Amino acid sequence: MKIAIMGYGTIGSGVAAVVEENRESISRKVGEPLEVKYVLDLREFPGDPIQEKIVHDVDVIMNDPEVAIVVETMGGVEPARTFVKKALSAGKSVATSNKELVAKCGTELLDLAKENQVSFLFEASVGGGIPIIRPLNQCLTADEIMEITGILNGTTNYMLTKMDKEGMTFDAVLKEAQEKGYAEKNPSADIDGFDACRKIAILSSLAYGSQVDYEDIYTEGITKITDTDFKYANKMGTSIKLFGTSRRVGEQFYAMVAPVMIDSSHPLYAVNDVFNGIMVEGNMVDKLMFYGRGAGSLPTASAVVADVIEEAKNLHTTLLTSWSTKKLALADMGTYSRKFFVRMAGKRSEKAAQAEAAFGKVTYIELEGLDEFAFVTPEMKESDYMEKAAKLCGVLQMIRMDM
Amino acid sequence: MKIAIMGYGTIGSGVAAVVEENRESISRKVGEPLEVKYVLDLREFPGDPIQEKIVHDVDVIMNDPEVAIVVETMGGVEPARTFVKKALSAGKSVATSNKELVAKCGTELLDLAKENQVSFLFEASVGGGIPIIRPLNQCLTADEIMEITGILNGTTNYMLTKMDKEGMTFDAVLKEAQEKGYAEKNPSADIDGFDACRKIAILSSLAYGSQVDYEDIYTEGITKITDTDFKYANKMGTSIKLFGTSRRVGEQFYAMVAPVMIDSSHPLYAVNDVFNGIMVEGNMVDKLMFYGRGAGSLPTASAVVADVIEEAKNLHTTLLTSWSTKKLALADMGTYSRKFFVRMAGKRSEKAAQAEAAFGKVTYIELEGLDEFAFVTPEMKESDYMEKAAKLCGVLQMIRMDM
Repeated sequence: MKIAIMGYGTIGSGVAAVVEENRESISRKVGEPLEVKYVLDLREFPGDPIQEKIVHDVDVIMNDPEVAIVVETMGGVEPARTFVKKALSAGKSVATSNKELVAKCGTELLDLAKENQVSFLFEASVGGGIPIIRPLNQCLTADEIMEITGILNGTTNYMLTKMDKEGMTFDAVLKEAQEKGYAEKNPSADIDGFDACRKIAILSSLAYGSQVDYEDIYTEGITKITDTDFKYANKMGTSIKLFGTSRRVGEQFYAMVAPVMIDSSHPLYAVNDVFNGIMVEGNMVDKLMFYGRGAGSLPTASAVVADVIEEAKNLHTTLLTSWSTKKLALADMGTYSRKFFVRMAGKRSEKAAQAEAAFGKVTYIELEGLDEFAFVTPEMKESDYMEKAAKLCGVLQMIRMDM
Repeated sequence: MKIAIMGYGTIGSGVAAVVEENRESISRKVGEPLEVKYVLDLREFPGDPIQEKIVHDVDVIMNDPEVAIVVETMGGVEPARTFVKKALSAGKSVATSNKELVAKCGTELLDLAKENQVSFLFEASVGGGIPIIRPLNQCLTADEIMEITGILNGTTNYMLTKMDKEGMTFDAVLKEAQEKGYAEKNPSADIDGFDACRKIAILSSLAYGSQVDYEDIYTEGITKITDTDFKYANKMGTSIKLFGTSRRVGEQFYAMVAPVMIDSSHPLYAVNDVFNGIMVEGNMVDKLMFYGRGAGSLPTASAVVADVIEEAKNLHTTLLTSWSTKKLALADMGTYSRKFFVRMAGKRSEKAAQAEAAFGKVTYIELEGLDEFAFVTPEMKESDYMEKAAKLCGVLQMIRMDM
């Protein structure tokens, strides 16, 4: 069984390493030896044993009938999309870790796989090594999914954990994350929530069976979260996490990426550092949680190779069927009700009347030595909160609460 | 698509309820309406709409070619085994929640399913509604599994949580659990660890690909755990959980069911009350954790019905292949190294010399007002611990540590 890897970066080299390291047990599961025949990359890798497999022309792979399965670990929409379409059209199954590709072109590629009686699998595109795509597709089929909420980005979770546990400032922790290689030089995809947004779009499309466009998802990153927010959170016994979340409320669907304040009763409260956690609630099974390494070369490659093994055992079969191309209309976040954590400049004694006039009975939290105070509003619609907050003077911060 | 349910108890009635409640979405996934045609039970259910489907003769089900899938929710080995064999031999796929049956006859029934080109699935037999069988079989195939550790019994986890958080005694919490219906009148299967033992046997057989006989697994329940143990644990910032665990160390495999002391860095530390949690460590993916409701009518039925849907979509296919009938030889627990928590009668000032002579440098924990003290040994082989402890006077308690 010959496979090809397109893109020899962090994940692609991990795929080669997993296939090498667990050669024996993988071959036993596939029923024959599984071997990497080509690696597509623009670069050369002199001295690396992979060098002899390097090709620069994608058609070498596409035209070789011996290659049954193609791994796509290049990232980005193009040329990944074009190459994956070529592979599927040539009757090769594809396994990818590419969340941009799946979020943007998932239905197109799943449909093309079906036309060609091959598979397009993408377990690694969400949650790295954590099994979530297959459980959603095969294990939770008896349920109506009511909610999916995930800590889906390891970089921002590492940063928020450091701010929480060590009192670091946002700027300091971003610098440290960049030095450690957890965050990119241009960290926008992580800290602005775009990465988490693509992932929750994929999970929501699978869970609700209709296309959720990531452009439609309200997305807010962690750049406005400060060390002062965590001082309040520590005093309240809460934490602040970047959630990608989608929820069914009656006939409506909500989806959002934003920092959320939670307490220790939330299943994702203990998901710290670079780890990811995904909570799924079904109407029969109640709440499930999946936890593990959401990034990293070997954990992510483990998920890619598991897809490859599944495809190798089921050549010329379509293992995953598409969700509907019918677009899922997302409800306006303004109609969603919750509590809000709010920080306000000034003294509580002077400003409380203003806050209470706007929000009614609020719960105060005060820290010593600061010329500000905080409060938690009663549960209210987000549009109501926004309207009332806009009329107040000195609102420093608002964080949505899920508790 | 017609199915039959054998056994209309907690799970069986849950299966009927799930099929009814989510009728529309289940039919969409199967591609045609899914309907319960028969329910096998010795009892009558006058007034229950199920009554019209009740049959007392299993052959009514077996001889009806319209019934494609049979759900087995009777529990126990016989007559479940005989009925499941009849169903598989008649070309019907089977989904079961019966851990005794799977632990005892798993390979036999998987092989029989294969012979008849049908499936024998048992996602619900371990972890109730938590997807774990399918993830182990399909998602973690690129890994060598190094460890599986689970809180696999909700009843004992509820009891230990109450003892931990509320200081209740073992007897009081058992009585409460029985009153709430969490524990049976005869609670032995839960509190002596037999239930967890069968579940870890199933998971280990799947993970390592060879038959793990539950009779071979060292099994210790929670009956010796006292409120005093939890007083020490609270002081140490630890907790005590009933673990079913199996671990690969080099070429050796260990398996055990026993109460274990862990600290908050363990992925299963926050698994409380009736919830189950299962930690799987692969050599590539590192540690994963799966969390949810390990028992209860609807959550467990959710897993059974998901198996039914998978079987309905793949009639005349064998979805799960057997592990090897070759028996996995388990290593002697005596050769396993770890730390031990030990309680000793008497004053530390009088007994410390004895403890240190036996175990070397130990770490003491003392509680006020007790005529006893506790210590943690250095890491040592269990056989060494046992040999040395046997020579000491006044050992009140030993709990294995995983930290």
